[in-house]
Amino acid sequence: MKPFHPTPKTLMGPGPSDVPARILEAMARPTVGHLDPQFITLMDEIKSLLRFAFQTENPLTFPVSAPGSAGMETCFVNLIEPGDTVVVCVNGIFGGRMVENVTRAGAIAVVISDEWGKPVDPQKVEDTLKAHPEATILAFVHAETSTGVLSDAKTLCALAREHDCLTIVDAVTSLGGVPVKVDEWGVDAIYSGTQKCLSVPPGLSPISFGPRAIAAVEARITPVQSWFLDLSLVMNYWEGANPKSNARSYHHTAPINAMYALHEGLLMLHEEGLETAFARHQTQHEALRDGLENLGFSFLVEADYRLPQLNTVCIPERVTDEAAIRKTLLENHNLEIGAGLGALAGKVWRIGLMGASASPANVEKCLGALKQELG
Amino acid sequence: MKPFHPTPKTLMGPGPSDVPARILEAMARPTVGHLDPQFITLMDEIKSLLRFAFQTENPLTFPVSAPGSAGMETCFVNLIEPGDTVVVCVNGIFGGRMVENVTRAGAIAVVISDEWGKPVDPQKVEDTLKAHPEATILAFVHAETSTGVLSDAKTLCALAREHDCLTIVDAVTSLGGVPVKVDEWGVDAIYSGTQKCLSVPPGLSPISFGPRAIAAVEARITPVQSWFLDLSLVMNYWEGANPKSNARSYHHTAPINAMYALHEGLLMLHEEGLETAFARHQTQHEALRDGLENLGFSFLVEADYRLPQLNTVCIPERVTDEAAIRKTLLENHNLEIGAGLGALAGKVWRIGLMGASASPANVEKCLGALKQELG
Repeated sequence: MKPFHPTPKTLMGPGPSDVPARILEAMARPTVGHLDPQFITLMDEIKSLLRFAFQTENPLTFPVSAPGSAGMETCFVNLIEPGDTVVVCVNGIFGGRMVENVTRAGAIAVVISDEWGKPVDPQKVEDTLKAHPEATILAFVHAETSTGVLSDAKTLCALAREHDCLTIVDAVTSLGGVPVKVDEWGVDAIYSGTQKCLSVPPGLSPISFGPRAIAAVEARITPVQSWFLDLSLVMNYWEGANPKSNARSYHHTAPINAMYALHEGLLMLHEEGLETAFARHQTQHEALRDGLENLGFSFLVEADYRLPQLNTVCIPERVTDEAAIRKTLLENHNLEIGAGLGALAGKVWRIGLMGASASPANVEKCLGALKQELG
Repeated sequence: MKPFHPTPKTLMGPGPSDVPARILEAMARPTVGHLDPQFITLMDEIKSLLRFAFQTENPLTFPVSAPGSAGMETCFVNLIEPGDTVVVCVNGIFGGRMVENVTRAGAIAVVISDEWGKPVDPQKVEDTLKAHPEATILAFVHAETSTGVLSDAKTLCALAREHDCLTIVDAVTSLGGVPVKVDEWGVDAIYSGTQKCLSVPPGLSPISFGPRAIAAVEARITPVQSWFLDLSLVMNYWEGANPKSNARSYHHTAPINAMYALHEGLLMLHEEGLETAFARHQTQHEALRDGLENLGFSFLVEADYRLPQLNTVCIPERVTDEAAIRKTLLENHNLEIGAGLGALAGKVWRIGLMGASASPANVEKCLGALKQELG
């Protein structure tokens, strides 16, 4: 066995996305202690930059020390108590994962299903919330990574508020790529990932909890089932807001170098500006869309609720072995695109334009490689 | 806010330890996809190298995608079902954390307490196992990071076996610093961390499950309470051993670059050899011990069960403000040592010699700085 020197790939799948050299360099800076005042300052800056990215003033905004799935679980296990009723919108694989989280936390999941490739239907949500006044939470995926669909988070959060439900929002693929307005929309709990539109290596899950969500955590009767993800403990490290002590206290050892990378990625987003980043994703999406349509691809998702950062296209009938094409792209063109998941496996490709991957060079490379391989 | 360029520190606390440049460089290599064949090969090599480090043939040996606390939780939530009885040995802070894991998983914890600074008493364990024939698991900490004590894992595992209990062993601070013999001792489930004697940045938790532990997971009646840590799902990604498919299937997005670093750190351990690494920790411990005793320090822990990689010393009475000394060491000498935790706060320092930190240069630096500051 030898040191690992990967052949670099252009990452245009559903994440991870291309990581700029600047972020990789930041990640390789010397490791310091997790209670070193230098690192505490870094943590404060990360919290501040995440508030910018999430467009929120929520003090409890920080990265969970594990990938997006753990961010999801953090939201559910802290806000659910056994026996609760949670309304979950499922229009793709990640909504299904939410249901798993709900039932494993001992709650009852009321599932609203929409077709894969369609957004969550607000009318069904309203009807379901009316029919289930006992529900305490509405959970949905803002940007479904399995289908490339954007749902109307603003409308869904307003409905939840009308029916006295907290919201849990999956923003793994949306954060940094399309607007995510936590305060304006009244989102109560939200989680994301680093390896999508932030272009940071995977491993951390930014979350934000608003005042109503914190009140619910504080009013819990049962302990949170996960020690690692229990916000009442993690907060003491990230907030120093332990009522018993105003010092930061050790909870677990944070992934120090991963935090360096996240800090650098967030700085780059701040330098570019949110609106500019969103516009760049949209512009590159339009260029890719035009090129793909010229090659005979059609989109799974209607233009109105299509994610610019994740282009899910139906594989043309003339392609008889889609896995072989993806393999050729990866091996001969050093280009990664994503396969379909679940019911869409073998039927669609998911072509990501996330973060640094949303560039004219990537669009050109992808279109050129597809043209060559598909003829 | 600007890019973060930390002042490098010599890390002689209870972890993280010094990370060699070779490992930091590996971490900064280009991010590839988590299903890229290159990365799958890397995963296989990491598993093989972890089997070497844990001295096991267990196929189910891999790093959990989160810090050591999540590795601990992986062991408990997969092996416990509600209503089970678990015997937990507590002789420091991490034994206490095990109790939290047990009760949050709905099991009954039978606690065996030993004084902080003493090892787990095998006689008490035997008596307790006899008194609790309903117990299914014995859990203990091999190397207590809060006190610097090594317990006799071989004897404790043999007792558990006699009484038909599975073992869960915390090897966070022991792995790579002192012998950890999973197969020879008959350990059933074990977890560690990367940021101690492996000298890799924090963020991953190597674990290994033996055949009896896997049988227990497969015989579960209730689902594992955590989706993120459910081994029956994670295995499909790490093992490709899904009975329904022999392909690796997506579970969550692994922390790609953290895996590069772990691979490199394990390669370095393999190149050095386990016995050589253990001998190096012991030699540097003896040099540090002699120097510290010359400076008037006494050890909290008896020599027979003292960890070479974590030296817990009683702070001399002439030191009136121990926090100020640690601050001076950090700011003026760029040297981090660890404070006492819990009941030992303010009374002891924990001086780590873990992984790359177990070097003559670090011993000399630490002794020189302490001599200068303590007079």
